[in-house]
Amino acid sequence: MDLAAIINKQWIYTARPTAEVTANNYQLVTAPLTKQELAPGELLVQAHYISVDPYMRIQQAAQDSWEAPHPLGAVQGAGVVAKVLAVKGDTGEIAVGDFVNCYTGWQMYAICAASAVRKLDPTLPLSTALGVLGMPGRTAYFGLHTVGRPQVGETVLVSGAAGAVGSIVAQLAKLQGCRVVGIVGSAAKQQLLQEEFNLDATINYKDHPTLAAMTLALKTACPQGIDVYFDNVGGPITDAAMTWLNLRARVIICGQISQYNGGLDNPELGPRFLHHILYKRALIQGILARDFADRMPEMLAALAPLVRSGQLRYPETIITGFENLPATLNALFYGNNTGKMIVKVSP
Amino acid sequence: MDLAAIINKQWIYTARPTAEVTANNYQLVTAPLTKQELAPGELLVQAHYISVDPYMRIQQAAQDSWEAPHPLGAVQGAGVVAKVLAVKGDTGEIAVGDFVNCYTGWQMYAICAASAVRKLDPTLPLSTALGVLGMPGRTAYFGLHTVGRPQVGETVLVSGAAGAVGSIVAQLAKLQGCRVVGIVGSAAKQQLLQEEFNLDATINYKDHPTLAAMTLALKTACPQGIDVYFDNVGGPITDAAMTWLNLRARVIICGQISQYNGGLDNPELGPRFLHHILYKRALIQGILARDFADRMPEMLAALAPLVRSGQLRYPETIITGFENLPATLNALFYGNNTGKMIVKVSP
Repeated sequence: MDLAAIINKQWIYTARPTAEVTANNYQLVTAPLTKQELAPGELLVQAHYISVDPYMRIQQAAQDSWEAPHPLGAVQGAGVVAKVLAVKGDTGEIAVGDFVNCYTGWQMYAICAASAVRKLDPTLPLSTALGVLGMPGRTAYFGLHTVGRPQVGETVLVSGAAGAVGSIVAQLAKLQGCRVVGIVGSAAKQQLLQEEFNLDATINYKDHPTLAAMTLALKTACPQGIDVYFDNVGGPITDAAMTWLNLRARVIICGQISQYNGGLDNPELGPRFLHHILYKRALIQGILARDFADRMPEMLAALAPLVRSGQLRYPETIITGFENLPATLNALFYGNNTGKMIVKVSP
Repeated sequence: MDLAAIINKQWIYTARPTAEVTANNYQLVTAPLTKQELAPGELLVQAHYISVDPYMRIQQAAQDSWEAPHPLGAVQGAGVVAKVLAVKGDTGEIAVGDFVNCYTGWQMYAICAASAVRKLDPTLPLSTALGVLGMPGRTAYFGLHTVGRPQVGETVLVSGAAGAVGSIVAQLAKLQGCRVVGIVGSAAKQQLLQEEFNLDATINYKDHPTLAAMTLALKTACPQGIDVYFDNVGGPITDAAMTWLNLRARVIICGQISQYNGGLDNPELGPRFLHHILYKRALIQGILARDFADRMPEMLAALAPLVRSGQLRYPETIITGFENLPATLNALFYGNNTGKMIVKVSP
C-alpha cells in the first residue's frame, strides 16, 4: 500500500476553551500522512467510529488533572474503532481487514503499534467497543462493583443515568437486585430509564431547580435513603444527594460533568457537606477508567454475554461526519446524547 | 450508703443554641438523687473528671446527625471518670473505690450498671481515660491506621493538630515514619508541635486567611503533596487541602469543628472540590469513635505502653469546677484548649 497516496484529515487542538468547546478550539488539517512507511510491528488503520467523551473537556482546562493538560498543536486524543488497512512484520493476532480499538484520536488515518490496539470481536457491534464494551463499560462495571459494592435491596442512585457510563451502571445495579433511581435531564430519558432499563424511579433534575426541591425529589424517590451514589454529574444534584446518604454509604465520583465548562480551574461554590460524610461514616472514592485498564478481559467476560442476550441495553447516539467532532463533543455538556455519543466517520 | 443523703448537681440541656453554646442553653439543678436504692449489678459513682467534646455541639443542632439530636430536658451526655462509692449484687470486677470510665454525663453523682463501665488501670493517670487512652485515642488510632494507612515516607497532614485527637494522630504518624505537618491556630501550639511532637512542619491557619494563602502554605509545608489528610476542622483549611492531594490520597473526616457553631443545619458555601477527588482517585471516609467501640483493648495495648514510655505525649487542658462545664464546652470552638479539654469536678 502506498502510504504517500493517503490524504489524512485531523482535528488539531489549538486553543484552550474558556467555557464551551467549539470548532474554534481546533484546526481541521487535510494533508498526506507524514510517515511514508510502516515499521515492523506497526499498522495503518482507518477510523470508522471516533469517540467523544466528557474527560476530553477536563484535559482542556489549564490545570493538571490526572495528568498534564492536553497539549496544544496535537491531534485531539480519543478512542477509535478502526479498520486495519496494512501491517508490517510481526503484528501478532492483528491482520489486514481486522477491526481494532485504538487510541489514535480525531484523525481519519493513523499508524500505530499492533501492541497498542485491541482486536475486536466481529460478532459484536463495532460501536460497542467505544461504549458498553469499552472504556465506559469498564468504568461502570468496576466502579460499581469494586467501590459501590451494592447489596440486594439497597438503593443505588445514579446521576447522568442515561449517559454512556450511567446507563450501564443503572442496569447493572438492577441486575444486582437493587432499588435503582436514575437522575436525567429530560422526560424522554426518564421514559427510557423506566421502560428500557426498568428502573424503580427517575428524576428529571430540570424539574427541581432548587436544592430544597431536589432534596425533596430524592427523598421521595429514595424513601429508604441512598446506599450507593454513582455520580457522573456533580453540582446541585450531588449537593442534594450528600444530605440523604445512609450509614456507610458509598459515593463513587466518576465524573462531574456539570462543572467541566468552567468550574474546574475556578470552582463554583456549593454548600459544605463533609459533616454528612462524618455522620454517616460514608465513603467517597474517585475512579477513572485507567484504574482498571488491565482488567478489560474480566469486564468483557461479564458484560458481553449480557449484551448478546439483550439483558444489558446500550443506547448510542451516533452522529455522522468527521467534521462534526468538535460540536459533538460540546453537545455532551448539554445532554444531547442518550447513551454513548459516537461520531461515525467511515461508511 | 444512704443514697437519699446525696445531693446531686446536674447540668440539664434545656435549649438548642443558634450559634455559641452558653450556660443559657442549660439549667443547673441541685437536688437529691431521684433513685433511692441500687438494683443488683448497679454502681453509685462520683464524677472526678468530666469530658467536653466537640461532638456535643453537633448533637445540639436541630437535625439528626449519627443519631437524633440530644434530647432537651436531660442531663448533658458526656464521658466521665468516676469513683465507685457503692455497689450492689454481682458487679463483676468492679468494687468500691475503683475508678471507672462511664457515660453518665454532666452530673456529680450517678447510678449506672456495672456492665456499662470500664474499670481503669490505677497505674495510669486517670484523666487519660477521657483522652489519649479513651474515646479520642481510639478515634485517632483506628482512624489513622484503618483508613489513613500511612506508609513510611508519606506526608500526613493533620488539622486541629494540637487538639485531643489531632495531637495523637500527629504523633502516631511520626512514629510510623511519615513526614507530618500540623495545622493549628496559635504560635504556642506551633511550638508544641515542633518541640514536643517533633513534627516536620506546622502551619498557623490564622496566618493564611485566604484560600490562596492557605494553599501556598500547604504547598510549602508539603512539597511532595498530601498522602493522608486527617481532618478535624473542615472549612477553608480543608478547601485548600483538597487541591493538593496525591494520587490515591486518603482523607479521614473525623471532625468539622469550624462548622459546628452554625454551619450544620444551614451549611456555609465553599468551593466545589470533587473534581480533585476524581483526578487523584482519592478516598474520603467519615469515621466516629463508636465505629471502633469494640476495639478498646487493641487500642490500649498499642497506646498505653507509648504513654508510659513518654513516646506519646498527651497534652491536657484541665479546668476546675463543675460550674464551668458549659463555658468549657464553648471554649473548644475557640481553640482555647491544648490537647484534651477536661473539667475536674472532685478534688
